[in-house]
Parts: sequence; C-alpha cells; structure tokens
Amino acid sequence: MAKVNVDLQRERDSCSFNITELTHWIDGGIEKTEERRKREEMALKEGIHIEPVPSVYLSHKEKYELAVKKACLLFKMIRKLQEEENAGMENYLAVLGGNLGAAILGDGNPLTLHYVMFIPTIMGQGTVEQQAYWIGRAFNLDIIGTYAQTELGHGTFVRGLETTATYDASTKEFVLHSPTLTAYKWWPGGLAHTANYCIVMAQLYTKGKCHGIHAFIVQLREEETHMPVRGIKVGEIGAKLGMNGTNNGFLGFDQVRIPRDHMLMKNSKVLEDGTYVNAPSSKLAYGTMMFVRVMLVNDMCKYMAKAVTIAVRYSAVRRQSQPKPNEPEPQIIDYLTQQHKLLVGIASVHAFRMSAEWLWLMYNNVTAELEAGDMERLPELHALSCCLKAVSTDDAAKCVERCRLACGGHGYMLSSNLPLTYGLVTAACTYEGENTVMLLQTARYLVKAWQQAAAGNSLPPTVSYLGELRAGRRSPPWDNTIEGIVKGFHMVASGKIGICVAQIEKRQNNGMSYEDAWNMTSVQLASASEAHCRAILLSTYYKENEKQMKTVSPELRQVLMQLCDLYVVYWALQRIGDLLRFTSISERDIEQLQNWYEDLLIKVRPNAVGLVDAFDIRDEILNSALGAYDGRAYERLMEEAMKSPLNAEPVNQSFHKYLKPLMQGKL
Amino acid sequence: MAKVNVDLQRERDSCSFNITELTHWIDGGIEKTEERRKREEMALKEGIHIEPVPSVYLSHKEKYELAVKKACLLFKMIRKLQEEENAGMENYLAVLGGNLGAAILGDGNPLTLHYVMFIPTIMGQGTVEQQAYWIGRAFNLDIIGTYAQTELGHGTFVRGLETTATYDASTKEFVLHSPTLTAYKWWPGGLAHTANYCIVMAQLYTKGKCHGIHAFIVQLREEETHMPVRGIKVGEIGAKLGMNGTNNGFLGFDQVRIPRDHMLMKNSKVLEDGTYVNAPSSKLAYGTMMFVRVMLVNDMCKYMAKAVTIAVRYSAVRRQSQPKPNEPEPQIIDYLTQQHKLLVGIASVHAFRMSAEWLWLMYNNVTAELEAGDMERLPELHALSCCLKAVSTDDAAKCVERCRLACGGHGYMLSSNLPLTYGLVTAACTYEGENTVMLLQTARYLVKAWQQAAAGNSLPPTVSYLGELRAGRRSPPWDNTIEGIVKGFHMVASGKIGICVAQIEKRQNNGMSYEDAWNMTSVQLASASEAHCRAILLSTYYKENEKQMKTVSPELRQVLMQLCDLYVVYWALQRIGDLLRFTSISERDIEQLQNWYEDLLIKVRPNAVGLVDAFDIRDEILNSALGAYDGRAYERLMEEAMKSPLNAEPVNQSFHKYLKPLMQGKL
Repeated sequence: MAKVNVDLQRERDSCSFNITELTHWIDGGIEKTEERRKREEMALKEGIHIEPVPSVYLSHKEKYELAVKKACLLFKMIRKLQEEENAGMENYLAVLGGNLGAAILGDGNPLTLHYVMFIPTIMGQGTVEQQAYWIGRAFNLDIIGTYAQTELGHGTFVRGLETTATYDASTKEFVLHSPTLTAYKWWPGGLAHTANYCIVMAQLYTKGKCHGIHAFIVQLREEETHMPVRGIKVGEIGAKLGMNGTNNGFLGFDQVRIPRDHMLMKNSKVLEDGTYVNAPSSKLAYGTMMFVRVMLVNDMCKYMAKAVTIAVRYSAVRRQSQPKPNEPEPQIIDYLTQQHKLLVGIASVHAFRMSAEWLWLMYNNVTAELEAGDMERLPELHALSCCLKAVSTDDAAKCVERCRLACGGHGYMLSSNLPLTYGLVTAACTYEGENTVMLLQTARYLVKAWQQAAAGNSLPPTVSYLGELRAGRRSPPWDNTIEGIVKGFHMVASGKIGICVAQIEKRQNNGMSYEDAWNMTSVQLASASEAHCRAILLSTYYKENEKQMKTVSPELRQVLMQLCDLYVVYWALQRIGDLLRFTSISERDIEQLQNWYEDLLIKVRPNAVGLVDAFDIRDEILNSALGAYDGRAYERLMEEAMKSPLNAEPVNQSFHKYLKPLMQGKL
Repeated sequence: MAKVNVDLQRERDSCSFNITELTHWIDGGIEKTEERRKREEMALKEGIHIEPVPSVYLSHKEKYELAVKKACLLFKMIRKLQEEENAGMENYLAVLGGNLGAAILGDGNPLTLHYVMFIPTIMGQGTVEQQAYWIGRAFNLDIIGTYAQTELGHGTFVRGLETTATYDASTKEFVLHSPTLTAYKWWPGGLAHTANYCIVMAQLYTKGKCHGIHAFIVQLREEETHMPVRGIKVGEIGAKLGMNGTNNGFLGFDQVRIPRDHMLMKNSKVLEDGTYVNAPSSKLAYGTMMFVRVMLVNDMCKYMAKAVTIAVRYSAVRRQSQPKPNEPEPQIIDYLTQQHKLLVGIASVHAFRMSAEWLWLMYNNVTAELEAGDMERLPELHALSCCLKAVSTDDAAKCVERCRLACGGHGYMLSSNLPLTYGLVTAACTYEGENTVMLLQTARYLVKAWQQAAAGNSLPPTVSYLGELRAGRRSPPWDNTIEGIVKGFHMVASGKIGICVAQIEKRQNNGMSYEDAWNMTSVQLASASEAHCRAILLSTYYKENEKQMKTVSPELRQVLMQLCDLYVVYWALQRIGDLLRFTSISERDIEQLQNWYEDLLIKVRPNAVGLVDAFDIRDEILNSALGAYDGRAYERLMEEAMKSPLNAEPVNQSFHKYLKPLMQGKL
C-alpha cells in the first residue's frame, strides 16, 4: 500500500476515540460490520467495477453497452449466490442499491428495476398462479422486466395516466393503447433497450366503464431476437444530468393485445365475461411505496457519508493561504468556514441514519398491524414517510453539493466522484414523489391532526405534541439547551401549522373554496410540513443517540454527544427566525448559541478524519481521487487525468483539420 | 412556424403589458435591441451551432474535436468581421460569452481564453514593444494563447504558487520550472491540446532573490507540428461536471528556457544583468480582475433569464393533478408553490441586471480616477465586486437548480438545457475567486469601515449607512413598506458587522491573536458580508427601478413595480430571523408580509409568460425542448430523444453479447 499523506496520518494519530468502535456502532455490531465487509468483498472481488477507460470518457451509447455488460455480470454473480446460499431479497438489494451498487455501476444500472420493481409488484399484486408462473421465470432471469407507470405528460398524479387497457370479451384479451403522445410511458429504467417484459400501469376499461389504474404484464420484445413486438414503440429518452447507465425508456402502444391473465389480479379482477370485481382494499398498495421511501432515506445517508468522507479527507490534505506571516499554509479544514460547511454533514449522516432505523421499525410494526387488519397508524406512517423522503433527499442533495463546492475547483472534476454522486442524489428529489408534493401530503395530515386536537381528540405519537402545545398556550421561558431547542422546534412546527389552519379558515370565510384557500396557503403549508419533519429529525436523533451511546466507551460517547449537539445547534441557528417567532428565545440566547456552535466546530474538528474513516467506505466504493484513504489527492488527480483518451496522443487530429488551417489563414 | 401550444398562446394574449416595450427597456432602448438581434443573427446564420448528433451523445474526445471545429469556425467569422467592420473587443466578447457563446459552444469553448485572458494580459502588462510584437500575431490568430495561473496545489492564494522563473544572466534567459507535482499548472482552458502559447504566472527569481509572481510568455507547442516543445509536459485534466468543451489542461516545466523579453515588463522589469526593477504600482492589476467580475454578474443574469424562461413556459404547458373534482388538471404555474419557485427568478434577473449596470458605471468611474492617480474608491469597488461576485453566482446557481427541479423529471433531461446551464453557472461559484473567500474579502473592508465610523470618520457611499446607523442607536419603529424593508436590510447588515467587530475584540481580549479571532468569527463575517450585499442589491434594484421605469407606459410600470415589490418582500421573508434580531418588526408585520407576498405572486402570475418572453431569448440560444417559444414541449422531448444514436437501432449489440447469454444461462 502506498504511503499515506502525512497530514492525514497525523489526523488519524491524534483522533481521540477508537475508529473501529465507531464503525461497529454505526453498523449495529461487529457481526454486522463483518457481514457488510464480506458482502462488499464478494461483490468487488471479481473486478466488475474496474474500468480500463473510465466510463465518463465514453460516448452515450458506449456507456450503455458497458453498463449492460457490468449489470449482466453482476446478475450472473447474484444468481450464483442465490443458488449457493439461498440468500434473501434484501441481499440483492444491498448489492444493487446504495454505495455498493454505485461502486459497480456508477451512473446507474439498466437491470435494477427487475429486482426492485418488476418482481416485487408481481409478488404484491399477482395471484398465486401468476406468482408461480412469473416469479420463477424472473428469478431465473429467463426474462428481464421493468415497471412503467410515469408517462410523458403525467408523473406524480397517477390518476391522470392516459394509457388504456380495454377488455375485449370476445377474444378474452386486453387491448393496450396510447391514445396521445403524452400517454407514452417515459422514464422507466431499463425500458429502452434492455427489458423484454414490463409491468404497465394503465386505465382499465371493461364493459364501457373505466375502473382506474391497474397493473398488466406486457411482453415488449421477442425473447429470441429482442425485436420489439408488434404494436410496441420503444426506445430511449435521451441523455440526462446523471444516471446515464439506466437506459430510461419510452413506450407507446398501438392496440397491443395481451391475454386476460396478464392483468395482475390479486386484488381487483376482470372475469372472462368482462365483469369487474373490486379490490378488497386499495390501501395495501401504499406498502410498497412506503418501503421504497424508507429505503431511500437510508440511501441518502450512504451518499452523504460518501460526499463528506471525500471532502473532509481532501480538506485535511489541501493547504491554502497564509493568515499568519512566516507560518506554513494551513490545512483548509482549519478554517472555521470550512468546518461550517463539512462537519454538520457528518452529523447529518447519523441523524438520518437513526431516523431511518426508527422509521423502519415503525414501518414493520404498521405492516404487521395492517396484516392483522388494523390500519390506524397507516396515515401517520404515510405522512412521516412523505416528509422524511422530501427532507432527506433535499438535505442530502445540498450536503453533497456543499461538499463538492468545499473542494474548490477539484470538486468539479468527475474524478472527485462528487458530481456523479450529486446526479444520483438530486434525482431522488423528483422520483418517488416530487418533494413539494410530498411535503403537502404531510401537510394535509398535519392540518387534520390539528383539527382533531382542536376537537379534543387524542393524537398519534408523532403528532401528539400538537395537542400538548395547543393546550399550554403560554410560551414557556426559553431553555438554551439541546432539550430546549428540540422542544423549541416542536413549538415552531405547532405554531406554523396553527397559522396555516387559521389562514385557510380566514380565506374560506372570505368566500374562497377550500381548494383555493389551500393553494393560497400552500407555501406556508410546505414550510410547516418541513418544520414538523425537522422537529421529528432533531428529537429522534437526540433520543436515539442518548439511548444507543450508553453502551460505548467514554471517549466515543463524548464525540457522539458533540456531534448531536452540533447538529441541533446548527439547525437552531438555521431557523432563528422561526424560533424568534414561536418561542421566547432572546438575542442573548442567540449570541450564546452562535458561540456554542463555534466551540463545537473546534471540538469536533480534530476528530473529523476519524469520524469519516469510521463510515468505513472502501476506496473502490468511494471511487474518488480526492477522498481515497491514503490522501494522495494530487497524485491521483494526475493519474486519473492520464486515463483520458485525449491524453493518449500528443497532438489531436483536430489540429491538422482546423487549428492549423485557422492559424495559417486557410480555413 | 409550427402552431403554438394553446395554453401558452392564451398566456400571451392575456398579458397586461406590451412585451416588446419591456424588451427594449431591458436592452436599454430599441437600437440596442436591434443591435443585439443583428449580432445574434450574424453569429447564428452560418449554422455553426447546429449539431446533427447532439454533442451530449459524443465521447469526451469527440466532444473536444467538435468544440475545436466550432471554435475555429467561430474565430474565422470573428476575424472576418474584424476585417470588414473593425469592430471592437467587446463585440468578440459578446459573441464568446454569455448566452450567445453558450448557444454555439454549449459546453465551453477551447479558444475563449485567447481573447479573454491572453490578449488582455499582454495589453495590460506588456511593454509597447511587446504589445507591438505579440498583439498583432494574436489578433491575426497566427498563434493561439491561453493563461496559466492556478496550479494543482494552489488556487485562490496566488502568492502560494510554486512554478519558478529563474533568471540566468549568462544566457539572458528565464528558466521555467515545476519543482513539484503540486506546482503543475492545472485548469487553464485551451491549455491541454489547443493553445500553442501561454501566459504563465510564476515566482520570479533573480540574483538569488524571489520577487513574487510575474507573467511570462511561453511557447508550448511547435507552430508547425503542434508537438509540445522540449521540457513542456502538457495534457488535459480529465472529465468535469460541465464545460467539457473547454479543454482544460495541465502544464509542467522541466527547466524550460525562454528569452528575457518574454517576461511582460510594463510594470516590473528584469534588466540584462539580472537587476530587478520594481513596479510603479501593483494595484493596477486589480483592474482586470474587477472587470472580469463585473462581466460575471452580467453573465449570471443571462443564465438566470434562460433558466426561468424555460421553467415558466414549461409550467404554463404542463398540467398536473386535480384539486377540484370534475375540473381539468391545472397548469402547474397555477400552483402557488410553483409561483414561489419561479417568479422571484424573473425579478432576480432584473435586480442583478440593474446592480451590474450600476457596478459597471462605478467601475468605469473608478478606472478613470485610477488613471488620474486617484485610488480612493478602489477598495470600496474591490469590496463590492467581491461580494457581488459571490452572491450573484450563488443566487444564480440556486435559481437555475430551482428552475430545473420545478420542471420535475423532465428538467433532469439534458434536452431541457437546464443541467448544462447549471454546470456553467456553478463553475462560476469557484472560479475567479472562491465565494467564501470573496465574502471574507468584503468582510475585511466592512470591519475596517466600521472601525473608521467608530473613529468618527466619514465613509464611502456604499458603506455610509454604517456610520448613520451607528449614530442613531435606538431602533426606529418598523415600517412595513418596501422602503422600510430596504432600510431594515441596512440595519441587519450594520448589526451583523457590529457583532462581528465586537466578537473579534472580545476574542482578542481573551488572548487570541487577531488572525485566530478573525477565523473564529469567520462564519459570522461571511454572513455579515452577505447581508451587506443583500442591502446593496435591494436598495440598488429599488432605486434604479424607480428611476428607470419613469419613462415606460403605465401598464408596464405597474408590472415592474410588482416585480420589485416581489423581490424585496421575498427577501424579507427569507431573512425574517435577521429582521427580528435587528429591527422592531412584529409577528403581525410578518404575517402581513407573508400575505403581501402571496398576493404579489397571484398578481405577477398572469404576466409570467410575457415577462420571460420579454427576455427575448431566441430558440437557438435557449436550446431547450421544454422552453421553446412554441411550447411544443412534449413533441420536442420526443424529437430530441430520437436523436440519440441508441435509438438508431431497434436492438443494441449488447443484447447478443450479454443479455441473451445471461437469459439463457450461458453467460
């Protein structure tokens, strides 16, 4: 192994806690760490991730071809594992998603939706017979599927989809059709040139009546030749900001006929004669959506951990400026402004990780209750998953971008891996429910909860604070502690929701419809929803951290407390306006908070490198010239540059074709 | 011309003002509009910008080759113009920079620095003889130059550069050398494979003594063969987030000898015997830097105008959701949250445009004063240009990204042109002075100004408010009007600077050095600097708008006032915490401001399309499937998708190579 940069080594030597202890704590125990490392070793040892010429230098078409090659080799490996170890679904997902997936297929995997959407949808919505037939073929990779819902003209609003599936009782077939250009399916990963089967969400018509959106399995391409089947228009949607390996596609139907049993009929059914039989419950479909959102929050932690690891290590290596004459240029991490940009990112990883774990537990409980027929906590979980999806993706995108900018010009290099990471993260702000729409979904729940509290009803745990704070009208004296701040955030959320409710009522009293009053108040509603989420995040992080750090060494405990304090005080300072409006915080308190924050930065700074080392992200996964464990940032930047095909020749052909004629006045 | 989307046409029909009148007003008169249109027509009529296969589908190398081809054809055109019309420098810059430059070379121009840095540096720092020799060759394009300052290990801190130029009196030559890897020049545009000459900034050594950074002209490549000359190691730095057409390069020297007269000697000199003669003034070099920053603010307006044009038009075409049963899906621009994301962007273009014009005037005045030997206002101008550079690039980047996200998934398509625009804008947050460093430069000036005010001295115009507000200690009653808010922002800036000064003093009194006290306060200093810039921006926009709108029609005046109000109220709501801390604004005022803001959104919304139409950005310049004038967003998305080379074949070769073997268990 190459020598480690001396500055970085010194940081590690002076770390006040045991880095390995923190790694185990993050993973949830030494066994979990070993398991994760084993999985990483297994996924990387065959070298599928290695690119002789980095894919960033390839053409769009070559990028796709390389992505298919890698994805196929990866799937082959997964299939082998499956045969050997009978490993569960979550193991495939672990290899396909998050940092490990991104390490192998850095700009997206054209086969992901096969495991992530195609198989789960059949499992969730197919009858036992359908499952028996399709799941076997899919698990065996005899066919490769994807999932097509979004259309060119229709995204978040699912009821607006235009694709039709009309039942023809005479032939016992459904006829799929795209009545307009805006009805074309648009976006599904792997749809363009990769999948040969697809779940298609379409408006079901039978006996002349529309029954809303249902799922159908449609063959897209011939199994032998891969040619599109008759009536199918399929292709790719073109180059994107990121994820150019995912092969996102479009899909149009010109009266495509499929057998009746290609409709997934676990819930609703169409009988042979065309009779529609209603679903026992439509709420069940929420399950998958929520599952995906919980997973998303987890993925966001991974991406943030990656970005902050890169930026912190580079900031320990990079030296700049000379504030004091005759002293060497300081490491840039010694600048308080740099600490301000980076250290809260480390804390955010822990905050979101603990919130994701807590949400995961709640998800499992609610799912168990659901199966027992109890739907009471479903709306609460739905509301939570919506706002956490929005806030975690938004915070993660900002964190990654802040890390990139904190690396100066070199962060702009693709070899830093920060731009590609941003491309993956910012996409999540839009997919699986656009963030503003998500916040407003939660706001609907909060407004209802407020009204229930006003009516004297008790509220579910995560919104019970609304009732309590409504009860005690008088603002208690401000308490300038972590607990006090967390309580302050609840008061902010409660205050904002209260104002929204009052505004809507006032507007209705002035003659507006409820819908218009809602729309006029929606900027404030989105903000109230975000405030609710912040209160949840801060209190969950604080409570879980207190609980989980009981078992660690005193050295580590101190650092974990500092991180949590840093996070809470950081957010207090970010939301001073709200705290001033809804609590009795004073100017003196604010100045104290500011100094507290500055002290915390200085306290956390010496452990910054240890804290990111503890995320234990292998160099192959980090994939960053700036962030590698050895800190040879400059050497690696140059090594990566030399991989550019442009550098293979001293003189590019365009000199002879254009530059020289231009300079000689002959162009 | 194709039919215009009906929703977009209706927006135009119902616009309350004359769009052409606004265009003329923005350009500064009908003649200016015509001149601009003529220049655009001239630059685009030869079709250099047209790409049969969009360059986003090409490999990195092919992108470069296409960029060279286009840049050479563009330069040929410029040279022709020069011969025909004897047009001035600003005309080349207009064609190379901003939206027009981006329309022709969407991802950067490998030849830009020839006109933007190489020639101006020789003009600014060369002797008359040097100018006579080099400028002629450069203008004639006999040689192509670039400018190399930044090194792999050294950016913003210029004094830290490592490249040396050591004078050898025995041969009357300078020896250029890169003593370390971190001394390699890194980043200059066109350096990699394009330029054959270069201005190199290096530490000058003569008679054993270092005299700091000076400029040298170095030949990089043989004029006939383009092969790197002996001792020169040159190549490209690799793929980046954006600007992949600029051919950014690295450059290392192994004892490269150049004649003595290749040092630019207008200011400092090295005589034949090696005697160093000092520069009469080193402040003059600030001129170019400030010029570039003023130009940057202007460019940021252009990029914001582009982004907001795309997003507003698309938001008028896109329909989504169904808040009211039995009504059609609304245009998404009817959602208040969407208006909140977009409309302030329109106002920002005007705010920054007027601030840039005002700064430009000040720059010209100060430059004239400088030439007369008066340097009094130089520090003020420097401080202004620093913070405006930081805030304009930061606001522009956020504006473009908000516009992109407001377009949902389709904003993520490169054919929207929003990602590429973001790549260009976010780069400006780092180059020409990293933004945090810029803010802290301004903060230094503000702290000094505060201390001068404390000592009873009068202050230059843009900081005179510090003295006035210090004088009247008691906070005046809050005035909930535009003037009142602008005044409030001055109070915020003044309050923040005052706290910073007190904090630094307190820390020094506790035994810290000034430098450490400065660093510990730097997060607050950067924030104070930003607050100063906001106060300048708001007051300049308000004052200039009042002045300039006197001559327009009443219909237009009303809209311009609404826009300015919207901008000011928006920022007041963004900075409620600051206003609560430093003014006597009340909760009631805040709720009124919020409702005022909501009303303004509703008032501006019907004119949104007209307001962006008035920016008068040709489709070729906008280059966006989502934002074209005709609003055929969906048709254009599909047309652009069909240009992907992947769509030229129904089945990609990777099916036979990988997918089919995988599905048949033969991989």
